[in-house]
Amino acid sequence: MAEAAKVLCMGNAIVDIIARVDDAFLAKHDREKGAMNLVDAETSASIYSDMPPAVERSGGSAGNTAAGIASFGGSAGYIGKVHDDQLGTVFRHDIQAVGVQFNTAPATTGAPTATSMILVTPDAQRTMNTFLGACTEISEYDVVEAEVAAADILYVEGYLWDTAPMKAAVLRAMDLAHKHGTKVSLTLSDSFCVDRFREEFRDLVDSKVDILFANEAEILSLYEVETFEEALAELKTHVKIAALTRSEKGSVLLSADEEVTVAAFPTTVEDTTGAGDLYAAGVLFGLSEGKDLETCGKFGSLAAAEVISHLGARAEVSLKDLAAEKL
Amino acid sequence: MAEAAKVLCMGNAIVDIIARVDDAFLAKHDREKGAMNLVDAETSASIYSDMPPAVERSGGSAGNTAAGIASFGGSAGYIGKVHDDQLGTVFRHDIQAVGVQFNTAPATTGAPTATSMILVTPDAQRTMNTFLGACTEISEYDVVEAEVAAADILYVEGYLWDTAPMKAAVLRAMDLAHKHGTKVSLTLSDSFCVDRFREEFRDLVDSKVDILFANEAEILSLYEVETFEEALAELKTHVKIAALTRSEKGSVLLSADEEVTVAAFPTTVEDTTGAGDLYAAGVLFGLSEGKDLETCGKFGSLAAAEVISHLGARAEVSLKDLAAEKL
Repeated sequence: MAEAAKVLCMGNAIVDIIARVDDAFLAKHDREKGAMNLVDAETSASIYSDMPPAVERSGGSAGNTAAGIASFGGSAGYIGKVHDDQLGTVFRHDIQAVGVQFNTAPATTGAPTATSMILVTPDAQRTMNTFLGACTEISEYDVVEAEVAAADILYVEGYLWDTAPMKAAVLRAMDLAHKHGTKVSLTLSDSFCVDRFREEFRDLVDSKVDILFANEAEILSLYEVETFEEALAELKTHVKIAALTRSEKGSVLLSADEEVTVAAFPTTVEDTTGAGDLYAAGVLFGLSEGKDLETCGKFGSLAAAEVISHLGARAEVSLKDLAAEKL
Repeated sequence: MAEAAKVLCMGNAIVDIIARVDDAFLAKHDREKGAMNLVDAETSASIYSDMPPAVERSGGSAGNTAAGIASFGGSAGYIGKVHDDQLGTVFRHDIQAVGVQFNTAPATTGAPTATSMILVTPDAQRTMNTFLGACTEISEYDVVEAEVAAADILYVEGYLWDTAPMKAAVLRAMDLAHKHGTKVSLTLSDSFCVDRFREEFRDLVDSKVDILFANEAEILSLYEVETFEEALAELKTHVKIAALTRSEKGSVLLSADEEVTVAAFPTTVEDTTGAGDLYAAGVLFGLSEGKDLETCGKFGSLAAAEVISHLGARAEVSLKDLAAEKL
């Protein structure tokens, strides 16, 4: 058996269907630009039937992060539910092929593997339209205690709060992490997601989270404050480590006794999908290798820059090689 | 109902699974570099399990051509068999979304939608490993006489000779074309394919084909000659129009009273997949619009240059816009 993964990621297992559209397309389909919009099967079919020719790539926020950690040469595992279908096979192949341990059994009944139609506008913004499908079939039984116990860090998506079975599975994973001394990390995922679950997320961050990821909009929304500085002040009293991204302004990493600002890595922005996921991959890889916060932040910036330089949310080159060359 | 398509394309309906590999990967899996290798389900699974993370895009030679014609603003239809599954839905979506008429009913029994694992080496060569799946479920009943009758040109792949049901369907389509005065066009597809069916292809070119597409290796193999000039001399006695590609040397278009050489369009070569398919798209679009051979050849060069500048065998920009800008 393979050595246990140091960073165990948990999220919605999704195959992305990616196309470039103009702003009029978003308006016509009444899509919230920049957001992750949940869609039912009917709305999904309706958008797809009007969507330009597309490209399919494995995605899913925490899946992208796990793949990124593995691409750095790190040790990553993944928990997420696909169906036993063609897109489920694609998802499994892609995450295992990059070196991530992925053992969650596929669902054999119920909805097909989740898809997200990702609409990329000329400003490189991405608007996601996610049909959760088989993701809602996950259960507490998919969380393997030995895997959680063996990991240094359990990393979960805020997106998992969107359905009861996913949330139950995450909460069990977090409890197991606490039982075994595994650190718990959460990404707030999306500011609209924070709007949906603000109180729960606040409690969670207070009581169960050691390492928090968020972008500026998400953290302002969480604490309902006006400025980034106010959010930082709040965070210092609530988590051990926070890593906050600010797009082209780079990121701020925070611990009890340190506050580090890391610049964004220069690149050409083609598609912002996966920027936060790959930033988290770099930071988590660094933490799992015992690096200091500044180095972690640089890994994050580098990985985010790579993924936004092309269409799709998985790194197209070895992040290990890229780090050796650029850092 | 939509106006009938001017160019009706017929081929194996395939979703491509594309990844970059090194030459050692081809050697390990004993793959013939640059060829279309047919694989059974077991070999397909074996290669896939060892393949790096991939990207999925609709493909299939004549499907790429039909999509290219539509991207030029031309009128194209497609006949090909997918299964009623996720990848079949992807194929149907992509070809219809670019404006191709595609009405072939999906198979509801038998093998899944065809896939081709396309391995792109650092020299930008592509090596294809195709599991034909549902393509072998096509039958003469999938050829609609009214569609063939209404078209100006019927365009078919040499690849269709690989199984008996596909061949039977093509021959019926060709007979209907002759009955209704629709021109017949064939691409030889692949020099290994020509090796497999040389005598049949020679008879076919002689008796049923009006417009022939081939690259240099294919046409040398068809007539078992040593030089391109000898092949040209042979062709003049056998077909009304031939369009022959020579990679970076451009192409030669031939009719009873004309021989035109067209330069390749300058580009950066990332992945040669689809070069011949998109060249054919440009030429067929030109012919269907009544353009002279030189203009047809230029459309072909432009489309081929676009498709080899990125991963995947479908144009990523509007060829109509590109032609307006560049020609």
